[in-house]
Amino acid sequence: MVRTMEPGIAEIEKAAARIEGFAVKTPLIESPILNERTGGRILIKAECLQRTGSFKFRGAWNCISQLDPAKAKGGVVAYSSGNHAQGVAAAARLKGLRAAIVMPADTPEIKQANTRSYGAEVITYDRARESREEIAARLAEQRGAALVPPFEHPDVIAGQGTAGLELAEEAARRNAPLDQVLVCCSGGGLTAGIALAMEARSPSTRVHSVEPEGFDDYARSLRSGVREKNPRADGSICDALLTQQPGAMTFAINRPRLGDGLIVSDAEVRNAMRYAFNTLKIVLEPGGAAALAAVLAGKIITKGRAIGVIASGGNVDAAMFAEILGGGG
Amino acid sequence: MVRTMEPGIAEIEKAAARIEGFAVKTPLIESPILNERTGGRILIKAECLQRTGSFKFRGAWNCISQLDPAKAKGGVVAYSSGNHAQGVAAAARLKGLRAAIVMPADTPEIKQANTRSYGAEVITYDRARESREEIAARLAEQRGAALVPPFEHPDVIAGQGTAGLELAEEAARRNAPLDQVLVCCSGGGLTAGIALAMEARSPSTRVHSVEPEGFDDYARSLRSGVREKNPRADGSICDALLTQQPGAMTFAINRPRLGDGLIVSDAEVRNAMRYAFNTLKIVLEPGGAAALAAVLAGKIITKGRAIGVIASGGNVDAAMFAEILGGGG
Repeated sequence: MVRTMEPGIAEIEKAAARIEGFAVKTPLIESPILNERTGGRILIKAECLQRTGSFKFRGAWNCISQLDPAKAKGGVVAYSSGNHAQGVAAAARLKGLRAAIVMPADTPEIKQANTRSYGAEVITYDRARESREEIAARLAEQRGAALVPPFEHPDVIAGQGTAGLELAEEAARRNAPLDQVLVCCSGGGLTAGIALAMEARSPSTRVHSVEPEGFDDYARSLRSGVREKNPRADGSICDALLTQQPGAMTFAINRPRLGDGLIVSDAEVRNAMRYAFNTLKIVLEPGGAAALAAVLAGKIITKGRAIGVIASGGNVDAAMFAEILGGGG
Repeated sequence: MVRTMEPGIAEIEKAAARIEGFAVKTPLIESPILNERTGGRILIKAECLQRTGSFKFRGAWNCISQLDPAKAKGGVVAYSSGNHAQGVAAAARLKGLRAAIVMPADTPEIKQANTRSYGAEVITYDRARESREEIAARLAEQRGAALVPPFEHPDVIAGQGTAGLELAEEAARRNAPLDQVLVCCSGGGLTAGIALAMEARSPSTRVHSVEPEGFDDYARSLRSGVREKNPRADGSICDALLTQQPGAMTFAINRPRLGDGLIVSDAEVRNAMRYAFNTLKIVLEPGGAAALAAVLAGKIITKGRAIGVIASGGNVDAAMFAEILGGGG
């Protein structure tokens, strides 16, 4: 896995052909109640309904389906806060490969359990003290396994971009050309893939990253023009969105293409999760609700506009979800 | 609203044209994990994602959109355990009509609040002691309002049948001709509409009603050939499925068309709600999870078969959902 060239729309189209029949073409949910509340059309790409409960299967399968089994006898290795883990584990099993995943010890139980349920080996580490990249690289070398990075890889980015392709096509079909698309953003792979897809298929659409307060490395990097770091490694409920800084490749793609980065508080995310439960009837994890939170909290103008919202994942522990439904702040 | 002739596929097709652009063409969710578990293909028609959170908007809009406003100056009146209430309230508002809804006092708060949120007046009654039909009929007469019954009306049945039409079309498109369809059943309107749609579009598909234990009036009626009553009016968590006996019109349609009625326990329903949360990432109310519960509890053979499952609604109070996620039996 040494290709480092940035992907383009051609790679996203090839990825769309590869994932066909393996990934779910997720529905675009439009709620009359949410439209009325916002005065616009809010089109929610429900990636929580994707295979493995998040968009991550798209990129993982686009990568892993191309591996030569003879060259990946040691299987695949990945590091992940939990959703990429499940995507890689499920893709590896489909391909008949072993998978070992390096995950933070504080990853939600559902993400660890699901990853194991696909037959993967889970190795935990301390998010604040250890380097997951180093642990994974060492493991890959020891085993002769292919490393599948969570975002810094053209095939991963192209795979995630298929969500943007589907979104642009379906929005056009519904006669709702998108003014903006809001993307829950961590390392920036999904955002980059969607930015590339929109540039090609819906060039007047502005793409915005959405991050949790205190983990706004992308928003700050877009302003400063260099890759900024977050001061902390944990401390938001959005466990999927805590990557420390933008990827070099994702930032190179995103920097010239994105609008201002949006930032939401944990309280706004909890509110969005409750809204998704009560009104949309879908299950969103905190990180998967960030873009919806930006709409509900009024971070952008919605009146008279068509806004795409990526609901990127739904892997949340039942106990946390129950606590949030109870109004826990 | 005096048409009493049974609807057929022609009426369902007309209903499909009427609801277009008003109702949601709900997605058919297929989970690789559930397929693997069952050894079949389970196609879940996610009516929880329908406008108003249940299939009921289909029939309500098919009825109410046809009303002559000059003849319905007093608006519309309905009685409902909660989902028909929301469907009627939303449809009436779209049509610019007043709505008054008679609901059991123990209806989940979310259903009452949502009904009011569409501008309807809610009148509660005691489920065990009073007759909702009488209260509603009196009210309709006093106000000069049109009564929209929850299932005993050809336009309501035809409207609900549109879910079956969509299911049959999408299953065919996915090359998954359905062996069986399981439908959460109360008065039998949805079941009847789907049975008619399947008869026309997928004649080899067997349709089965699914009811909660103790409220299996349809299953018993199908066996005895006459409309049997439930001994009790409440006592299951499936608040949407407690109608006391099959409707005369729905039974006339269903009796020659249905396979054996299936029965699920409240514990099996709770388990299905947890499964929908953890694996499918959709929110189901108890009554909306009954058909899925029948699959998960092994009430039918699934191996090698394609089974349609109607997930009929998602209007559940947060407190109850949280308690069920916590494993409450």
